[in-house]
Amino acid sequence: MTTFTSVTVLGAGVLGTQIALQTARHGVPVVVYDISDDAVAAGRERLAGIVEQYLGDVGEDARPDADAAVARIDFATDLAQAVAAADLVIEAVPERLDLKRDVYARLAEVAPADTVFATNSSTLLPSAIADATGRPDRFLALHFANHVWRQNTAEVMGTEQTDPAVFERVATFAEEIGMVPIRLHKEQPGYVLNSLLVPLLDAAAGLVLRGVADPETVDTTWRIGTGAPMGPFQVYDVIGLRTAYAVASASPEPGAQAWAEHLRTEYLDQGRYGVESGEGFYRYR
Amino acid sequence: MTTFTSVTVLGAGVLGTQIALQTARHGVPVVVYDISDDAVAAGRERLAGIVEQYLGDVGEDARPDADAAVARIDFATDLAQAVAAADLVIEAVPERLDLKRDVYARLAEVAPADTVFATNSSTLLPSAIADATGRPDRFLALHFANHVWRQNTAEVMGTEQTDPAVFERVATFAEEIGMVPIRLHKEQPGYVLNSLLVPLLDAAAGLVLRGVADPETVDTTWRIGTGAPMGPFQVYDVIGLRTAYAVASASPEPGAQAWAEHLRTEYLDQGRYGVESGEGFYRYR
Repeated sequence: MTTFTSVTVLGAGVLGTQIALQTARHGVPVVVYDISDDAVAAGRERLAGIVEQYLGDVGEDARPDADAAVARIDFATDLAQAVAAADLVIEAVPERLDLKRDVYARLAEVAPADTVFATNSSTLLPSAIADATGRPDRFLALHFANHVWRQNTAEVMGTEQTDPAVFERVATFAEEIGMVPIRLHKEQPGYVLNSLLVPLLDAAAGLVLRGVADPETVDTTWRIGTGAPMGPFQVYDVIGLRTAYAVASASPEPGAQAWAEHLRTEYLDQGRYGVESGEGFYRYR
Repeated sequence: MTTFTSVTVLGAGVLGTQIALQTARHGVPVVVYDISDDAVAAGRERLAGIVEQYLGDVGEDARPDADAAVARIDFATDLAQAVAAADLVIEAVPERLDLKRDVYARLAEVAPADTVFATNSSTLLPSAIADATGRPDRFLALHFANHVWRQNTAEVMGTEQTDPAVFERVATFAEEIGMVPIRLHKEQPGYVLNSLLVPLLDAAAGLVLRGVADPETVDTTWRIGTGAPMGPFQVYDVIGLRTAYAVASASPEPGAQAWAEHLRTEYLDQGRYGVESGEGFYRYR
């Protein structure tokens, strides 16, 4: 028996469906909520695609298990109904503070009093959301990465108001569904992974912007020097250059502004978005 | 025939002997210069140890080739004699500006006029040394990493005075002796690798200092999130915590000062220096 036995995921997006599959694969029934029949239909299709991606990674032998997991996943458009039986709600709605706060305000009215709420937010701190939940002691962040089954870290980060017992229950549950729980003892924008990755990517951008070395040379150096499978510009291509542009252009820092401009004129204006478009710093088949 | 056919290495230290072995393994005769008979004796012993390390890495089958390489390496304590036939001098003396400038001033007097000089300096910029060489157009940095045969980047970095043809000759030669030349088009403290690595290590230190997460958690996150074989604190242990302390304590930045203090009290005072002492952030057998 897992620590939580009935999970509702809010948002049938890329992460939401991956989290649902990961949870259901470990025997836990999941309800995926989204706002409309159209959103749910798109979510079902997305989940089917995620299953194929997962099987492409781990092999066809896992298909019966994946099918059984999908059978454990229901979709819903009625929030009250979606969370009626949930002891854990994992929220993976778009990354806008007003939207998230609104979702939590509605959720607080309909969810059972002891249900734990976890946000998968990448950039918003849980303390900016906590009071909207009506249960700040049972609210925290549980952050998954893309390709949940492979990059299986679950960063667990509470606010000052989060009950330590709730924090531990969520970390334990993350482990039960095949994740490696990463316990953060303080709120940290970017959690652990992005707190490390962003300075590396910034430094790499600086070398190229200053004309010290080209992206391929920087990546080669990093791969040989550290044994990492990918250099920083390969990582940029995976993240997507539109995302990198959005982050850089939102920063007031002059170096970031110059980098945003470089990305726009040399890549985005050419339709080079990274892996997703087949070309970024590198070409992909 | 290699681009340079007779190489002298100044300094029989860890890097000097590794560079000599790497060069000689590719058929080029090498003279290793050091200041005294004692230094040369220590250098011969160090070279023998490096050969065993190299064979431990690549396998015993390479022993005949390694023996042949060692036979191509001479040691000398007379600078004029050591460089009389050299068309390339690679300087790997201790990392002190006054010492290096003094070595180059003496070298300039005795080396053939067309001999190219390359510094393996990790932290000093070649422009700080160039005028002492008497041949700034034939002087540049050629930076090797520890375990030259495995981490086989050779960072090539000139000054504004370096002849581009000399730069290319040195990069070509690096490739001929089994290195991957990393061409830097501008002077950059830390070259490419350390320009990327230092911000990552600083960010990791910050997470631990602020109590966000412990070193093992940070490393686990990095390994799973990026596929890298080592997290930042494993890298710290390899670099050595005395070196990390020296770098941090030399920085005026408050975060670096706090990190230096943390390293001193929690690690150095306990004799925990990293891999070299058997314990740092981790224990080693």
